[in-house]
Amino acid sequence: MTHILVLHGPNLNLLGERQPEIYGYQTLADIDAALVALAATRQAHLRSQQSNHEGVLIDAIHDARAWANGILVNPGAYTHTSYALRDAIAAASLPTVEVHLSNIHAREPFRHTSLLAPVCLGQIVGFGWRSYLLGLQALLDHLSPIA
Amino acid sequence: MTHILVLHGPNLNLLGERQPEIYGYQTLADIDAALVALAATRQAHLRSQQSNHEGVLIDAIHDARAWANGILVNPGAYTHTSYALRDAIAAASLPTVEVHLSNIHAREPFRHTSLLAPVCLGQIVGFGWRSYLLGLQALLDHLSPIA
Amino acid sequence: MTHILVLHGPNLNLLGERQPEIYGYQTLADIDAALVALAATRQAHLRSQQSNHEGVLIDAIHDARAWANGILVNPGAYTHTSYALRDAIAAASLPTVEVHLSNIHAREPFRHTSLLAPVCLGQIVGFGWRSYLLGLQALLDHLSPIA
Amino acid sequence: MTHILVLHGPNLNLLGERQPEIYGYQTLADIDAALVALAATRQAHLRSQQSNHEGVLIDAIHDARAWANGILVNPGAYTHTSYALRDAIAAASLPTVEVHLSNIHAREPFRHTSLLAPVCLGQIVGFGWRSYLLGLQALLDHLSPIA
Amino acid sequence: MTHILVLHGPNLNLLGERQPEIYGYQTLADIDAALVALAATRQAHLRSQQSNHEGVLIDAIHDARAWANGILVNPGAYTHTSYALRDAIAAASLPTVEVHLSNIHAREPFRHTSLLAPVCLGQIVGFGWRSYLLGLQALLDHLSPIA
Amino acid sequence: MTHILVLHGPNLNLLGERQPEIYGYQTLADIDAALVALAATRQAHLRSQQSNHEGVLIDAIHDARAWANGILVNPGAYTHTSYALRDAIAAASLPTVEVHLSNIHAREPFRHTSLLAPVCLGQIVGFGWRSYLLGLQALLDHLSPIA
Amino acid sequence: MTHILVLHGPNLNLLGERQPEIYGYQTLADIDAALVALAATRQAHLRSQQSNHEGVLIDAIHDARAWANGILVNPGAYTHTSYALRDAIAAASLPTVEVHLSNIHAREPFRHTSLLAPVCLGQIVGFGWRSYLLGLQALLDHLSPIA
Amino acid sequence: MTHILVLHGPNLNLLGERQPEIYGYQTLADIDAALVALAATRQAHLRSQQSNHEGVLIDAIHDARAWANGILVNPGAYTHTSYALRDAIAAASLPTVEVHLSNIHAREPFRHTSLLAPVCLGQIVGFGWRSYLLGLQALLDHLSPIA
Amino acid sequence: MTHILVLHGPNLNLLGERQPEIYGYQTLADIDAALVALAATRQAHLRSQQSNHEGVLIDAIHDARAWANGILVNPGAYTHTSYALRDAIAAASLPTVEVHLSNIHAREPFRHTSLLAPVCLGQIVGFGWRSYLLGLQALLDHLSPIA
Amino acid sequence: MTHILVLHGPNLNLLGERQPEIYGYQTLADIDAALVALAATRQAHLRSQQSNHEGVLIDAIHDARAWANGILVNPGAYTHTSYALRDAIAAASLPTVEVHLSNIHAREPFRHTSLLAPVCLGQIVGFGWRSYLLGLQALLDHLSPIA
Amino acid sequence: MTHILVLHGPNLNLLGERQPEIYGYQTLADIDAALVALAATRQAHLRSQQSNHEGVLIDAIHDARAWANGILVNPGAYTHTSYALRDAIAAASLPTVEVHLSNIHAREPFRHTSLLAPVCLGQIVGFGWRSYLLGLQALLDHLSPIA
Amino acid sequence: MTHILVLHGPNLNLLGERQPEIYGYQTLADIDAALVALAATRQAHLRSQQSNHEGVLIDAIHDARAWANGILVNPGAYTHTSYALRDAIAAASLPTVEVHLSNIHAREPFRHTSLLAPVCLGQIVGFGWRSYLLGLQALLDHLSPIA
Repeated sequence: MTHILVLHGPNLNLLGERQPEIYGYQTLADIDAALVALAATRQAHLRSQQSNHEGVLIDAIHDARAWANGILVNPGAYTHTSYALRDAIAAASLPTVEVHLSNIHAREPFRHTSLLAPVCLGQIVGFGWRSYLLGLQALLDHLSPIA
Repeated sequence: MTHILVLHGPNLNLLGERQPEIYGYQTLADIDAALVALAATRQAHLRSQQSNHEGVLIDAIHDARAWANGILVNPGAYTHTSYALRDAIAAASLPTVEVHLSNIHAREPFRHTSLLAPVCLGQIVGFGWRSYLLGLQALLDHLSPIA
Repeated sequence: MTHILVLHGPNLNLLGERQPEIYGYQTLADIDAALVALAATRQAHLRSQQSNHEGVLIDAIHDARAWANGILVNPGAYTHTSYALRDAIAAASLPTVEVHLSNIHAREPFRHTSLLAPVCLGQIVGFGWRSYLLGLQALLDHLSPIA
Repeated sequence: MTHILVLHGPNLNLLGERQPEIYGYQTLADIDAALVALAATRQAHLRSQQSNHEGVLIDAIHDARAWANGILVNPGAYTHTSYALRDAIAAASLPTVEVHLSNIHAREPFRHTSLLAPVCLGQIVGFGWRSYLLGLQALLDHLSPIA
Repeated sequence: MTHILVLHGPNLNLLGERQPEIYGYQTLADIDAALVALAATRQAHLRSQQSNHEGVLIDAIHDARAWANGILVNPGAYTHTSYALRDAIAAASLPTVEVHLSNIHAREPFRHTSLLAPVCLGQIVGFGWRSYLLGLQALLDHLSPIA
Repeated sequence: MTHILVLHGPNLNLLGERQPEIYGYQTLADIDAALVALAATRQAHLRSQQSNHEGVLIDAIHDARAWANGILVNPGAYTHTSYALRDAIAAASLPTVEVHLSNIHAREPFRHTSLLAPVCLGQIVGFGWRSYLLGLQALLDHLSPIA
Repeated sequence: MTHILVLHGPNLNLLGERQPEIYGYQTLADIDAALVALAATRQAHLRSQQSNHEGVLIDAIHDARAWANGILVNPGAYTHTSYALRDAIAAASLPTVEVHLSNIHAREPFRHTSLLAPVCLGQIVGFGWRSYLLGLQALLDHLSPIA
Repeated sequence: MTHILVLHGPNLNLLGERQPEIYGYQTLADIDAALVALAATRQAHLRSQQSNHEGVLIDAIHDARAWANGILVNPGAYTHTSYALRDAIAAASLPTVEVHLSNIHAREPFRHTSLLAPVCLGQIVGFGWRSYLLGLQALLDHLSPIA
Repeated sequence: MTHILVLHGPNLNLLGERQPEIYGYQTLADIDAALVALAATRQAHLRSQQSNHEGVLIDAIHDARAWANGILVNPGAYTHTSYALRDAIAAASLPTVEVHLSNIHAREPFRHTSLLAPVCLGQIVGFGWRSYLLGLQALLDHLSPIA
Repeated sequence: MTHILVLHGPNLNLLGERQPEIYGYQTLADIDAALVALAATRQAHLRSQQSNHEGVLIDAIHDARAWANGILVNPGAYTHTSYALRDAIAAASLPTVEVHLSNIHAREPFRHTSLLAPVCLGQIVGFGWRSYLLGLQALLDHLSPIA
Repeated sequence: MTHILVLHGPNLNLLGERQPEIYGYQTLADIDAALVALAATRQAHLRSQQSNHEGVLIDAIHDARAWANGILVNPGAYTHTSYALRDAIAAASLPTVEVHLSNIHAREPFRHTSLLAPVCLGQIVGFGWRSYLLGLQALLDHLSPIA
Repeated sequence: MTHILVLHGPNLNLLGERQPEIYGYQTLADIDAALVALAATRQAHLRSQQSNHEGVLIDAIHDARAWANGILVNPGAYTHTSYALRDAIAAASLPTVEVHLSNIHAREPFRHTSLLAPVCLGQIVGFGWRSYLLGLQALLDHLSPIA
């Protein structure tokens, strides 16, 4: 069985309430439920965690080294400022997929650059909550390639 | 009655001790007491919180959505680095006033730019502990305009 | 029935031969076949075109206005230099998904910026030929949302 | 008795007419009247002057050295281009408070930087005509501290 | 009848004398006469003013709000430094056409950028004294479109 | 008789359909017809060509050396990226006028800079389809000055 | 007796496991033991703390004001992003030595700049776990100079 | 026998006519003839091609993979803008020598940087038509070293 | 007889009072008197003018074309911002010497660059009021070379 | 026995006299004596050389290839400008430790960057003459590791 | 008696031969003779030295500490690259005047910035060989002020 | 007979030993011998000199004015830092060819820019020791053109 850490960064606990014209109407619980449903079809088990604390996110990545096969992460605004998260992902040596709900390249300039992307497997942006589903699929395909 | 979150960022717990030639001789308790006294004359209730943890400050802003009408914030050094705090303020959709004790424009270049100011109502810098009082007054006037 | 233009930019005709450690071992024909197979399961019809000519790519986008519902594009190196392609996508007003085989954010700095991404629906990078499949799925889900 | 020069820079004579969604509906006369009223409660006397001429503003600051105890200034667009005004303020050696009606940090990038702020006591931005009142209060508190 | 303010910025009083290989041999009076002649064929009335004083130019734009339907302006070197003029044009809310005698894009780098162009209707550069005539024509066509 | 090459760059074939709030409602055929009508009054003959291919535009400029007296060009997005077009214009040694429908200085930053303008006679931007007419007039006046 | 706070920043808990070709094979416990051994020869007492949380590191520096004579810190990736840590060190007014295991100047450009170094006594980089020992020696020599 | 593709980029068809003070008086046919003569002495066969179309140049490089042992290229203005050509050269995996007639480092700043040079064997600039001959010699020496 | 315009820019009327540790204790009248005394020994006549108004300074330069042989100018802070003054000097075609009391290269970065120096004969900085005397001498030597 | 080249760059011959508040009161002879004393305890032999000539320093590094096991270098101001020294160190292939007396990161911006550090083993800054001792110790530990 | 070191930097030995349209027709011997003549009238003694070697120039400055009261220096191209010379001047603590024959601000951009000026008393540029005479006069006036 | 100065810059004395994977296995003596052999076939005489001292290289260029017809130079790392060498080459007014063994455009960014190239006839990079031979040939062809 494949084990995946799903990590939600700062302010994502407000999903569904905060600026829905940008981030959509699904709550984090909705997204986690959809991810679990998809994972079930692929013999994968998820642990999901949200935190506004950079340190908590780093701790979670460290812990994942003991039990997970990969990481699906939406780093929120830490995408643009946290070399510490980048180092944690690089140190964990687990395949990691970065996702964003909005198309960060169509927003303010500071959101165009991800400090984490260079150490991730790939990045998916702009498809709302479906970014997560596509990201999970990409991660599972990478771990257990069919074709 | 008006409810206001007063948020003090990193290192402000040292006020009165730390570099008084820059930050003045009042302690954080002194400032909070002066703010409460001013609030009392305006039928306003304050909750004050200091933290050196970016995540704790974000959590406090999220919580304020449930009970506060506005936020008075001195983000300390996170002013210059935290897009996560900026997103939290934007998501909270509460009028927010940013204050600084020192005139940040007369100090090191890195202190000249605030990542938070663009999502705040306004900014007041350079008047020592009076920056807070002016900021609270500005916030209350915005919430309950007299003139 | 949904109609999709699949557009491959410069040098992608060499796929499978050129630097496979970066771009993988699948040929463009392999990828097109996989895309057609996926499209068949979603009642979608594809037309695929590759060109090393910026003008031919622009013409193809213009033509697509008459028959397509969306565009899946890997703009190759034009990603980083062609405002003309960007204008063509913006003018076509068709939902467009940008994909890249490699993780462009982990390569040379000039590859980190896409001039096209700001006018696309979203972007998927880093999953080899699966980037295309994920991109087609994202496009079809956008055009015919199920959930 | 305290004497204050109130200086309004270029285009501020159009206040109340020009782009009221940015600058508000009060005219300069309204603002001067409110300032006079506030000054009266603090035993302060004001002289107010508006000019579109950089040189006239500099002359006024020079003159103030002979009669004023402080300066309240909204330098308008000269905020961003006039080192001559900056030198005048530095040379006058009078405590000076800079105010702006709009939140300059939330507008075009060229408005984010004030060449004058580094030689002022402090800066207040974003509270419409109340920026002036808060600025006067800050200046008077500085000159005649109560607490 | 259409009323147009024609505004000539700093050093343009020297036209015909100053560096004719760059600016041509017509004097300002010649140009004004040609403009008046053209205006006469279009039922337009012109008022022309030259000043080396930024403040005088701003005052003239403010005054034009009371009597003019549009502005034709050659801002000279203030093109590159005056946000105050830009604010005046934006505040006047009159259609404004910016003209330059020389092709500013073929000269020193500092002349390539116009701070005023973004708030003007359009810009015409490089045709010597004919830039003015084309600019007037463009302005009158905008105000009273024929086709 | 005067012979003029009228050259329309990438995406201009979509005029009248594409983002009319920016580019207006006239089609390229409308504009060409208006240009021909104006040319007729000045004993000028036009050849008009549109292409999305940078190379085709360069070829056309080369060909024009054999038959044309001047060039009127709207280089579209190649304005900002094509040093090859710039070299072609410089090599052709024909007076060239650059026009743009929209005010490029009021749009995205990448549109503010023209690589071609330094080798053109002049530039006209912001007057919609009238930019072309003014440009043709400027070119013909340059070739056959009346005054 | 001299008291020293030894502070290890984010991801340093993984030492010995994470990228040993960069960071070496010693664990954090190994390093702390070596430091304690060295301290013993100098009548110094150490308290060592590791955290991935910026706020926890700041709190520890604040606490050290009550008991420590100096600080030895490896700020990890916060070296490059944390003005809050810098302010904490400046506020603590304790001599602080910054150390890094790897030669940060020979790695990615973002690692070349330390925001903390300007408020530290000195910096030692590139000697693996010996950087710590040299740093402690430098700090103790500074506090109790022999020569 | 050695086979070499000689590729001439945009505007080089005008050689001998265009700005001879910069590019010299030889035509492209003259240069090709001189190259063929030199090749004959080295048992090398040349195919020469000129195009103003970036795509045609890329296609030619792709084709060369089937028959050529090396490429001699003067990329003209595409030198400074075409990452697509760079990718084509990198993908072709044929030794490639870049030549320029003029000393590009002594001309406008935009000509100082070659996007192609990093993937070429070497670069020769500034010797007029002799740059080509030196380049061919360098390429043949590389393919069939004598000394 | 030689005629020289001596031009003093903004804030120089405060000389002797303003920041004497930077600018010295001589008043403008003292300096003008010393200049007149020096001029007398060289058969030169001076007219001295100070203004805080950029336009007045430009007007004075224009006027000087009718009567002066050279200009000695301390442009004050307009040194760093006024392309209009630069154009005026260039247009006047009179040899112009720029002087500064303080060593502008040893002060704030914005003072290191003079927009006027490129169109002046030379520049003298850092010798207090003697900068003026040296500048006058340089100008007179240039106009009437002895050696 | 271990042989070490100790290299002192420009102006270091003035140590003890030059700006002692920055560089301390020890002369170069004092420092060399302390280094020799330390070396003696580690079976190491030193040769020390100071020069203000970049070429002499390069020559010394070249010579060291024949007799030394490592280099201890304080490159003085050549730290910030000499790629030739950097190449010499890289070519020598001897482990090299860079030291500075002052904390270069707390001084002028141009001193923050070392061109040599990327090819050195490590760097030690800010501990006065003790930087040398720590550097020698680091170098000897690297050459003859004990632990 | 006053003793002055006159220092001529690289390539100045070619004066009178090298590019006289820029540097004039006087040889270095001519200039030294003129300086000696001027010095004689002021009871000053000069020692003049030219070198193309940065190290020799530094050595000369160091030596001057033992016998000179001031330095007159034309650093040639080392003006723009030598922080080592700057440190030498700062360390010598002798008043130093920097001169240049040409107006460096009117030449290539790299010549606009002097690394030495910030540590000199003042700078004189643009007056040919008279720059030296003015510089010597400035230096002597500084050392033995008359007025 | 033609006389050529061959100048080798810093660290080139180590050729054949230093990083042969970058610079090749030929020693400087090998290269000089090959150059002499080539020169013999063209009636040319060479004088070769290597130095690590910038000043020595400048002196050699100055001397060459008396006897040489041209210069062949590999400036090593001074390529990127020495405006003094650039001035020497410009002053010598001898045709100069710059060569580099490695392809400097494919290495670290600081090696991409040559300060000398703008004053040289041309530049050849990337062909190992053959760069020298090609450079000599280019220089001799320039001095005694055959074709």
